[in-house]
Amino acid sequence: MKSFILAADVGGTNIRTALLNKEGEVLRSLKRPTLAQRGREALINRLVQMFNDTLKEGGVGLNEVRGIGVGFPGPMDVERGIVFNPPNLKGWQEVPLKDVLEKEMNRPVVLENDANAAALGEYWKGAGRGTGSLVCLTLGTGVGGGVVLDGKVWHGAKGIAGEIGHMTLVKNGRSCGCGNRGCLEAYGSSRGVIATMQELLERHRIKPKEAITVEAMGKWARAGDSGLGGLAQRAIREAGISLGIAIANVANLLNPEIFVLSGGVTNLGEYLFGPLRDEVNKRALPKAVEGLKIVKAVLGDNAGVTGAARALLLRSGRS
Amino acid sequence: MKSFILAADVGGTNIRTALLNKEGEVLRSLKRPTLAQRGREALINRLVQMFNDTLKEGGVGLNEVRGIGVGFPGPMDVERGIVFNPPNLKGWQEVPLKDVLEKEMNRPVVLENDANAAALGEYWKGAGRGTGSLVCLTLGTGVGGGVVLDGKVWHGAKGIAGEIGHMTLVKNGRSCGCGNRGCLEAYGSSRGVIATMQELLERHRIKPKEAITVEAMGKWARAGDSGLGGLAQRAIREAGISLGIAIANVANLLNPEIFVLSGGVTNLGEYLFGPLRDEVNKRALPKAVEGLKIVKAVLGDNAGVTGAARALLLRSGRS
Repeated sequence: MKSFILAADVGGTNIRTALLNKEGEVLRSLKRPTLAQRGREALINRLVQMFNDTLKEGGVGLNEVRGIGVGFPGPMDVERGIVFNPPNLKGWQEVPLKDVLEKEMNRPVVLENDANAAALGEYWKGAGRGTGSLVCLTLGTGVGGGVVLDGKVWHGAKGIAGEIGHMTLVKNGRSCGCGNRGCLEAYGSSRGVIATMQELLERHRIKPKEAITVEAMGKWARAGDSGLGGLAQRAIREAGISLGIAIANVANLLNPEIFVLSGGVTNLGEYLFGPLRDEVNKRALPKAVEGLKIVKAVLGDNAGVTGAARALLLRSGRS
Repeated sequence: MKSFILAADVGGTNIRTALLNKEGEVLRSLKRPTLAQRGREALINRLVQMFNDTLKEGGVGLNEVRGIGVGFPGPMDVERGIVFNPPNLKGWQEVPLKDVLEKEMNRPVVLENDANAAALGEYWKGAGRGTGSLVCLTLGTGVGGGVVLDGKVWHGAKGIAGEIGHMTLVKNGRSCGCGNRGCLEAYGSSRGVIATMQELLERHRIKPKEAITVEAMGKWARAGDSGLGGLAQRAIREAGISLGIAIANVANLLNPEIFVLSGGVTNLGEYLFGPLRDEVNKRALPKAVEGLKIVKAVLGDNAGVTGAARALLLRSGRS
């Protein structure tokens, strides 16, 4: 009877909802702006509306839905379904989102951190399909991470495991939003690679006519080795090296089968992945790189909802 | 009937064997030099002799022994029971130690990496008793590590997980025995803390009359803040900071309940642990340090055999 799963991936900019079958295929999906500034109540109402619209578009009744998986930003208590103070959403201190949504939707709800949901999605239906252990890095404005061991997200004692973005790479390095210095996020995120580019431009007294974005940097790098192109290649290589050091460290510690990288920064292609892989091979122990795969994510915008649906399937029996 | 377990902890210097009950109590133990230079055959014969002597001393027959757990250095395939090329033992390329010992002893044998065995021992009967997840660092000549999640050692895809000692802390830092630069091991091991002390002594043109050892450094540090004592305090603090950065990184990634530190370097006490804890609190995310324990190991020389016995109990059903 209950052959469908509703899923959501709530981001600072957009909300995505989807209807999936138990095999993890996305049958229908919707994407609407989060409008986070309108506050908590408005966001929850919007999410409920999107769930109902997704069902309607899919021609599926709520009675055919097994449950709802929700990927949500920031730290949370996945067991109790409580969201703590996500950095990109204001007014969300200790919200019992699972209970709230269960009352609204009358279906079991399972929460998962958004980076963990993306990791679980890629593990289940994406680049990590068929592997035993996976570490996912999401290279966007920040660097998110998720660790999947033996098919399950490793949450840790307080539910915050997977925070690879805040690995210290440089003792007295760049300030990071978390309050620490020298975090991977300050070097390997889009903000990080842009900051490195700005440093190089200042040092070489070059002022590009365009805004410095990851897209522009990719374009400059592909255009050639000299001038702006050479600097872009160098800045991207630096980000690749930082990511490579962090991945080597995680490879030595967890020895996963695969690293899956997603997010806008991965569009920098081999300018990023080349130095990244070289650094991993140089630094990680031989056994840790034996057969190790480092690949781009394949599910794109569907990773979060797919993983949230998987989290529902894995955990709904216990909740 | 079979209420006892034999266990061994094979090190580069000593072999320890023990007879334990199923509750993990060490009933008898023996310690003899490894004499690794005499080669593989001699070591295996020695180990078998020690197992038999341990049984005799304990007044227990082989028919009362459920199986044998062996902690062994270096990388290995725990499933197949094959030892690969341990760095401190020559002539051990791809040795099927499990099969060899099972033939000699006529009992099921389970192998475990020595650092993992120590971690599992501390988890089961030591400082980590009653916790859900533990990371162990052994600070000796090198830095070993073991990761215990939900009561089991996490081995990873190729069995080498837990190698925290080879986390890169300084991009172009000190050379490490593994071929990489800037590894934790080059700063947080006894060799690392001694190297830092030597650098400080050279810079200050001080020549101590005694050999520079971890014990001597502890003595100098306790004697006072000036001269040799001040430099020793500073060198130990540097090691504590390096260990703190690595532990913060692991806390963010795995969010374990407890870190357990063992090995000679931990005898440097608060000169080491003070800066170490400060660094963790400064760098790790607040949720990662909430309730986090960082403590000294309590089982001493028994950690390895206790963990090896636990590995036997956990895995003998499957082997």
